[in-house]
Amino acid sequence: MQYFIAVDVGGTQLRAACYPENSHTPEKIQKISTRSEDATVTERLIKLIERVMPDQGLLAAIGLAIPGAVNPFDGIVYIAPNIPGWVNVPVKEIVQEHFNIPVAVGNDANLAALGEWKYGAGRGHSNLLYFTISTGVGGGVILDNRLLLGQSGLAGEVGHITVAPEGPLCGCGKRGHLEAIVSGPAIARWAAEQIAAGVPSSLSSKSPITAKDVAAAAANGDTLANDALKRAGFWFGRALADFLHLFNPSAVIIGGGVSQSGEILFTSIRASLEQHAISPKYYQDLVIRTAQFGDDAGLIGALSLAQDAVNP
Amino acid sequence: MQYFIAVDVGGTQLRAACYPENSHTPEKIQKISTRSEDATVTERLIKLIERVMPDQGLLAAIGLAIPGAVNPFDGIVYIAPNIPGWVNVPVKEIVQEHFNIPVAVGNDANLAALGEWKYGAGRGHSNLLYFTISTGVGGGVILDNRLLLGQSGLAGEVGHITVAPEGPLCGCGKRGHLEAIVSGPAIARWAAEQIAAGVPSSLSSKSPITAKDVAAAAANGDTLANDALKRAGFWFGRALADFLHLFNPSAVIIGGGVSQSGEILFTSIRASLEQHAISPKYYQDLVIRTAQFGDDAGLIGALSLAQDAVNP
Repeated sequence: MQYFIAVDVGGTQLRAACYPENSHTPEKIQKISTRSEDATVTERLIKLIERVMPDQGLLAAIGLAIPGAVNPFDGIVYIAPNIPGWVNVPVKEIVQEHFNIPVAVGNDANLAALGEWKYGAGRGHSNLLYFTISTGVGGGVILDNRLLLGQSGLAGEVGHITVAPEGPLCGCGKRGHLEAIVSGPAIARWAAEQIAAGVPSSLSSKSPITAKDVAAAAANGDTLANDALKRAGFWFGRALADFLHLFNPSAVIIGGGVSQSGEILFTSIRASLEQHAISPKYYQDLVIRTAQFGDDAGLIGALSLAQDAVNP
Repeated sequence: MQYFIAVDVGGTQLRAACYPENSHTPEKIQKISTRSEDATVTERLIKLIERVMPDQGLLAAIGLAIPGAVNPFDGIVYIAPNIPGWVNVPVKEIVQEHFNIPVAVGNDANLAALGEWKYGAGRGHSNLLYFTISTGVGGGVILDNRLLLGQSGLAGEVGHITVAPEGPLCGCGKRGHLEAIVSGPAIARWAAEQIAAGVPSSLSSKSPITAKDVAAAAANGDTLANDALKRAGFWFGRALADFLHLFNPSAVIIGGGVSQSGEILFTSIRASLEQHAISPKYYQDLVIRTAQFGDDAGLIGALSLAQDAVNP
């Protein structure tokens, strides 16, 4: 029996799991905190992988999902803002030399797209877009049954396209990006601004407001909270029209905490999409649905990548 | 010897050429006007193809470049706004049945991307973006040495992404698209508006102003004309940053009449791109250059498609 190990490298936790071939149900799964005073992240990563090694059989490959800019070809992490010290680190080479086994690395949101396509909500769709809307907005693109990587693995940065040139500043330092308008913090910030400007809302007792609070208030009929989700849906739908014009997918999969905001958001996304698309051909057969994998998206994605590394 | 026939279907002219295998220099080339009172466009197309048939040897395939929305898989033209009667026309099937030879069809701007990648300014680049900026803005995307088509061949509509939500109306009916801001007519219109508002310019004697006039005046040091090109470059560069974040290509090829506007435009595009990209990794090794094929872009693209249909 062959096995695959997948690791989801997060800013808070490292999670690793060992999967038998042809399965995405782990036989072992472990997590440790990312940071420690007595070891580097890379050392902790190696230690964690050792803890999920298969007891018998052959380990075929290891896949790593990295929260940052990664070159999937040479396995160098350019920068991972939440991982201390990971700037131009040859993570693939380090792990590969330690275990003497093929190692594949990728951006975690890109890999989540791969995982949803292979095992989740996107199964059967040769061309799909995946978005994760939470603290930031990331994603990945599957075209003709392959993950879009680009020349140096930097493709699919779906959160950093300009949707409102005069809009709010994005975490990346540029203005008006999709992430700056529809991420969880952006939705919460807009609601807080409205309350500060005097708009009544059940949210006015909360401080700070989170996107989860907004979704809960909207579900309870709060008008402002409703408007906050409708606004996010409007902008997301407008950007989605652009994405459809460029990629013409048959499915759009939306994950991340904000995707759990309910029907108000999705109804608004579809209405805006239909308003902004240049032809119904782009959306009439389009499937839009929530992602299947929540916290496991990175693991399942890293597993898919590891499997592809051995059986492309 | 095998031969390929390529046809560029234009709103004014139909052009067809016959190429020996492994060559993109035509042995025969013919053109006729697209419209006629005594025959349909499809009839004229077939007649034109007959006129460039190889005198000896085998005709291996025919490629057709269509100015509209085309499904390259089933060969149905959804709509070609400048070709009378071409709405949901099975052009591939009609031509294939007439000649009993493989026929491949594609959108002309998509195919121009393919031609530039295979024979022109994009040779050697596995991932490239091609834009044609003239009356409209179209283009195509090559990813991993393949033309991006999407689920039903509607991908790569690079002119119809929203860059300025409050911007001018686009020919497609939506607002603020790239085409509505950087196409030749959009550049000319902006210059005319400035003149109407009292800005002095050598262009004030021209009526109507064309983008070619603007480029000529800019080359002669006219400030307004300069500003018109800089403005187009700014918006194009901003959109290009978005495209790079999504596709991460190694080359950007720009064709169409506006691409002949000179260094002012390209300097402005690059400056804007560097201002708006989220990391220098997207542009530091990026090649930006003008297309190699002018009026022959559609023919060379259709040829490339026909060749691929036989030897994929």
